[in-house]
Amino acid sequence: MAQWHLSEDRLFDPDPAQREIARRLYRGITALPIVCPHGHVDPRWLAQDTFDAPGAPITPSELFIVPDHYVFRMLYSQGVPLDALGVPRADGSRSEVDHRQVWQAFADNFYLFRGTPSGMWLAHEVNVVFGIQDKLDGQNAQAIYDEIADKLARPEYRPRALFERFNIEVLCTTDAASDPLKHHQAIMDSGWQGVVRPTFRPDAVVNLLAPGWKGAVQALGGAANCDITTYTALIRALESRRAYFKSMGCKATDHGVESAYTARLSDAEAEAIFARALRGEATPEDAKRFTGHMLMEMARMSVEDGMTMQLHVGVYRNHNAQLFEKFGADKGADIPIKTEFVHNLRPLLTEYGNDRRLTLILFGMDESVYSSELAPLAGHYPALKLGPPWWFQDSPNGMARYFDQVMETAGLHNTAGFNDDTRAFVSIPARHDVWRRASANWLAGLVVRGLIDEGEAAEMAPEMANGLARRAYNL
Amino acid sequence: MAQWHLSEDRLFDPDPAQREIARRLYRGITALPIVCPHGHVDPRWLAQDTFDAPGAPITPSELFIVPDHYVFRMLYSQGVPLDALGVPRADGSRSEVDHRQVWQAFADNFYLFRGTPSGMWLAHEVNVVFGIQDKLDGQNAQAIYDEIADKLARPEYRPRALFERFNIEVLCTTDAASDPLKHHQAIMDSGWQGVVRPTFRPDAVVNLLAPGWKGAVQALGGAANCDITTYTALIRALESRRAYFKSMGCKATDHGVESAYTARLSDAEAEAIFARALRGEATPEDAKRFTGHMLMEMARMSVEDGMTMQLHVGVYRNHNAQLFEKFGADKGADIPIKTEFVHNLRPLLTEYGNDRRLTLILFGMDESVYSSELAPLAGHYPALKLGPPWWFQDSPNGMARYFDQVMETAGLHNTAGFNDDTRAFVSIPARHDVWRRASANWLAGLVVRGLIDEGEAAEMAPEMANGLARRAYNL
Amino acid sequence: MAQWHLSEDRLFDPDPAQREIARRLYRGITALPIVCPHGHVDPRWLAQDTFDAPGAPITPSELFIVPDHYVFRMLYSQGVPLDALGVPRADGSRSEVDHRQVWQAFADNFYLFRGTPSGMWLAHEVNVVFGIQDKLDGQNAQAIYDEIADKLARPEYRPRALFERFNIEVLCTTDAASDPLKHHQAIMDSGWQGVVRPTFRPDAVVNLLAPGWKGAVQALGGAANCDITTYTALIRALESRRAYFKSMGCKATDHGVESAYTARLSDAEAEAIFARALRGEATPEDAKRFTGHMLMEMARMSVEDGMTMQLHVGVYRNHNAQLFEKFGADKGADIPIKTEFVHNLRPLLTEYGNDRRLTLILFGMDESVYSSELAPLAGHYPALKLGPPWWFQDSPNGMARYFDQVMETAGLHNTAGFNDDTRAFVSIPARHDVWRRASANWLAGLVVRGLIDEGEAAEMAPEMANGLARRAYNL
Repeated sequence: MAQWHLSEDRLFDPDPAQREIARRLYRGITALPIVCPHGHVDPRWLAQDTFDAPGAPITPSELFIVPDHYVFRMLYSQGVPLDALGVPRADGSRSEVDHRQVWQAFADNFYLFRGTPSGMWLAHEVNVVFGIQDKLDGQNAQAIYDEIADKLARPEYRPRALFERFNIEVLCTTDAASDPLKHHQAIMDSGWQGVVRPTFRPDAVVNLLAPGWKGAVQALGGAANCDITTYTALIRALESRRAYFKSMGCKATDHGVESAYTARLSDAEAEAIFARALRGEATPEDAKRFTGHMLMEMARMSVEDGMTMQLHVGVYRNHNAQLFEKFGADKGADIPIKTEFVHNLRPLLTEYGNDRRLTLILFGMDESVYSSELAPLAGHYPALKLGPPWWFQDSPNGMARYFDQVMETAGLHNTAGFNDDTRAFVSIPARHDVWRRASANWLAGLVVRGLIDEGEAAEMAPEMANGLARRAYNL
Repeated sequence: MAQWHLSEDRLFDPDPAQREIARRLYRGITALPIVCPHGHVDPRWLAQDTFDAPGAPITPSELFIVPDHYVFRMLYSQGVPLDALGVPRADGSRSEVDHRQVWQAFADNFYLFRGTPSGMWLAHEVNVVFGIQDKLDGQNAQAIYDEIADKLARPEYRPRALFERFNIEVLCTTDAASDPLKHHQAIMDSGWQGVVRPTFRPDAVVNLLAPGWKGAVQALGGAANCDITTYTALIRALESRRAYFKSMGCKATDHGVESAYTARLSDAEAEAIFARALRGEATPEDAKRFTGHMLMEMARMSVEDGMTMQLHVGVYRNHNAQLFEKFGADKGADIPIKTEFVHNLRPLLTEYGNDRRLTLILFGMDESVYSSELAPLAGHYPALKLGPPWWFQDSPNGMARYFDQVMETAGLHNTAGFNDDTRAFVSIPARHDVWRRASANWLAGLVVRGLIDEGEAAEMAPEMANGLARRAYNL
Repeated sequence: MAQWHLSEDRLFDPDPAQREIARRLYRGITALPIVCPHGHVDPRWLAQDTFDAPGAPITPSELFIVPDHYVFRMLYSQGVPLDALGVPRADGSRSEVDHRQVWQAFADNFYLFRGTPSGMWLAHEVNVVFGIQDKLDGQNAQAIYDEIADKLARPEYRPRALFERFNIEVLCTTDAASDPLKHHQAIMDSGWQGVVRPTFRPDAVVNLLAPGWKGAVQALGGAANCDITTYTALIRALESRRAYFKSMGCKATDHGVESAYTARLSDAEAEAIFARALRGEATPEDAKRFTGHMLMEMARMSVEDGMTMQLHVGVYRNHNAQLFEKFGADKGADIPIKTEFVHNLRPLLTEYGNDRRLTLILFGMDESVYSSELAPLAGHYPALKLGPPWWFQDSPNGMARYFDQVMETAGLHNTAGFNDDTRAFVSIPARHDVWRRASANWLAGLVVRGLIDEGEAAEMAPEMANGLARRAYNL
């Protein structure tokens, strides 16, 4: 039976000279703690110190497949129905499927992940995190299922134990603006030393045309103890919630928008648009302008309260209408689109780009603007930093392209290090390991080509591993 | 005199470890038959088993230069007039030029092809296919001309003999919807065992503004035995022709469009536009919407009859107006343009993208959407596959970029293998060899970086060589 | 104390086989003279043979930092105010800052340039041009300042001595259409043998909305001895100035535009727009159409007078409004934008693209059109050539991407070699050295992959070093 063989030298260039330097640089950063400034891990797990739902122990399929659109989208693309993978429907129901069958379908099709980052992460998780030697295939699927299920029931596989074993220094979650942060409170109250910070994400109330916008505004009002009937009240509520988040350890906000459009509206226009939205009469142009204005306000508030502002741009959400209707959002059908930053972001940069109190971190998946728009912008504006390769670009080649196309112009110190952006908690070490290996290899490439010397590389490697992220997020 | 020296290791990475693995992988696939699911070889050659025109033996210039815009565009860009290359004018005439002079101009300027894929293919053709040892230059041009001309007169250089020597398992041509397929019929009737399949390409009747559209519609009506005076009749005629093509062994359709725009029109709107077009009153907007609608209909028909649908998108045809007026289409003046898939293709994918009965293969030359749009779409929709690098991107670097930017997200099995897309019959082995070498080298790169093991690579290599293409086209 | 260590093999691939070939190719071109067909060196330096301003000896900070937006933008992006770097304000004033402090800030932050082309050039300048062994850091900043200041006072560091030491065969400056070229005249009159040629750049009168347009038109009229009150007069004045520039050794024109839009206007429309502009009533659409038309006229004049036409496209100038107001143009806040050539350039190419008397060299920073638009256009139109990677892309990786994405389709001979485009005179050897190393390495990569043989590479290397540029500019 085939065994996992995760090479000590994986992701390093085959050239012996470069590889040897990469190895040394990598060895110098492997022991550094993991800093997770942005991600989607459920804080409940760490508050309650269990992956189990009430009365239902977690299964391997629930840990690896069911909630992870990175994984099931690949199976779906090759004809495996989401129902057969136990993915819940939009109405909360799910097909009656044995999780062992889900796992079997996954194992039978594991070859589809060859050469993909998901394949690397899954190998790392099964082999390194769960200590399983046999390589997953259709034959051994059930035995491996049993072994993982068995381990999941042990104390050393509970969330806090893994958090510590993973050597996580800080983990930032992503939370709605109206979230009471009770899990974060519970973690603080528990006496456990792990640092878990919330992130303020007000998308649900900023995007006037999002499904459930009105409910989100009401929830925000509830959380902020006010009645949000005007734009002015919305701003006050957001300021109030930011203050609360900050008191709970929050260091950053996050904003997901389809376009990087920004615009400063007059208060009158903002109020008028907000009133139309409350009446259900907001137009797409209204929504665009309002979102663009709210980004300006978020930048203003960040200047004032010091929270780092993250901007994730350029995704066509829920592209597959049939699938969305049946299964809802986040089902692997979000597709990146072309993204323009130079014109769109100018109003915001004109007001706040020269202000060192602001740290604005940009994320996009349209690599065609890496070397032309993003790197020159980050290499000029004091407030700007570039986030690491995101989502589909969070991969060995995606990182190599990012280093290649961004670093010469932006310079390393105008980037924000790495974040894993994941909801798959057990994949965190794998993802950071890929970044650290890719970083070490990139630096080794600079050394062997004579662009920097190894001493410089040895100073840059820990910056990339966690220093840049720590500073960009004030962690 | 300089000799050709086609290295056994060409296109392989210089690193000894990677090169050794690439060699082994390549050796494992060299004997596999060539599958040609898409191309433009003239079926007459194989029906009549000769490259000669009636009463006129083919010359080396006619085989290598005159009909091949890949070749003469490069000479033209450096000041060699098309007349001097014997390229026929739009009116069918051509300048009085000795084919020996054409060959001489080609040989004198052969240095222009250094480092280009055309240069590689031509070297392979002259050296490997025609067994000529001396490297082409201005000095030996006429001697090599004589040697090629001599060989072209021999039986072993007739089309069917070459087809067999090239180890071609199946060759698909590209044929107008109205084509009677008499050459295909002749091949079948001849008792020769070579498999030559037609491909259904209805562009001439789908694009309302194409020159000669009305004539193409009449020709289609003639072929389908009906009078196409309405949109409904057009659809019936196309369905009838598809059935005929299918009966003649056709496995796929092909559609060349400037934009990937799709839209479902009402029957009433489709009829109205078609009526305007017949009156010569169709607008560009009409043409765009009609083409977008016809792509929907083609997808519907593919769901029904099982033929694979190919979509080639994003070329500005006949960019050089002066040249087009004098020489007509396909003269090296077709230029790729930016291509958007996410919004444009959504109507079609909404209706048919989840349907496993459809295989829709996308081709484009705008690489800036490889990693952002194309790979994520193919990595999600069950019906979608990505075609190989096309035309200007069908090159060693184009393939490397494709592997780099597509495979991590789409996964190998959402791609459709290779096709040569060529009208240059004798270049077929060279083109597939480049792909196989590039594939072996890419897989070796994954192995040496620890992303897959060599056993996995050895399974993937034959898929890339012909397995994926065979399945994507049901060959 | 750390020493500079500029590896003999810098920028070469680490693979020993490729590196050895790259070394040989590089050694074959190191002695070739430097050809500078495009740049922004101040001709006053060479006319007066001094870097000093009247009564004020140049300081190291003035040579390396104050006028070089490549350098100070990086410091600014990390929070160093331009005032602290001695950068002059738009009103001509500058903050009272000791140039030793400027140098100290630069040295303290020199680590920011790690892995950037500016870092490479600066290392080359300090170490090779100024012969300083200690690597610049905060500790030795003042000592190195003293050493550079000392050397700048010596005869062998005067501009003409450096010009000769750099082995510059010809240096082209960039000059306004109204420039009297008195420095060029002085150089010719001086008997010094160095060849310094002007370049005709009429942007200031072609862009109707540029600040100071009216003044520029008046200046042009003054230079051409006519009163430019009509479009016709403008054309005559430009023709007259081109003739003057040509008589002064000018070989090329240069045009910087935000978009590659071209259009042939009727004389009547051109006159009407010009009249509106004189009345201060030109619209943005007027300006766009007028610029597009003037590019047509410039191509026409180039056909007539034989001057090579350079087109630099796709920069959003002065993106940072706050900085522009305080410090003016060219302060590191120019950001590349997406650039479209296929549709925009078609009118010009339709009229002049087939005319071998025209050489039109295209420059852009939007790499997403390298392989799709630019290479196919250059690989077809006889009049077109592609300029080298420009500005932010003038870097080791930028060159590698250019070779990768352009050469297979355009072919080497449809490119225009290298130019340094710099105002930093002492950086010229460094910049050409990067190009020559990158070229040698690229060619070695082709050799080791079997695409060309070393003899062919040895012919191509000097073409890349200066042959292609010499021919493209008729130097």
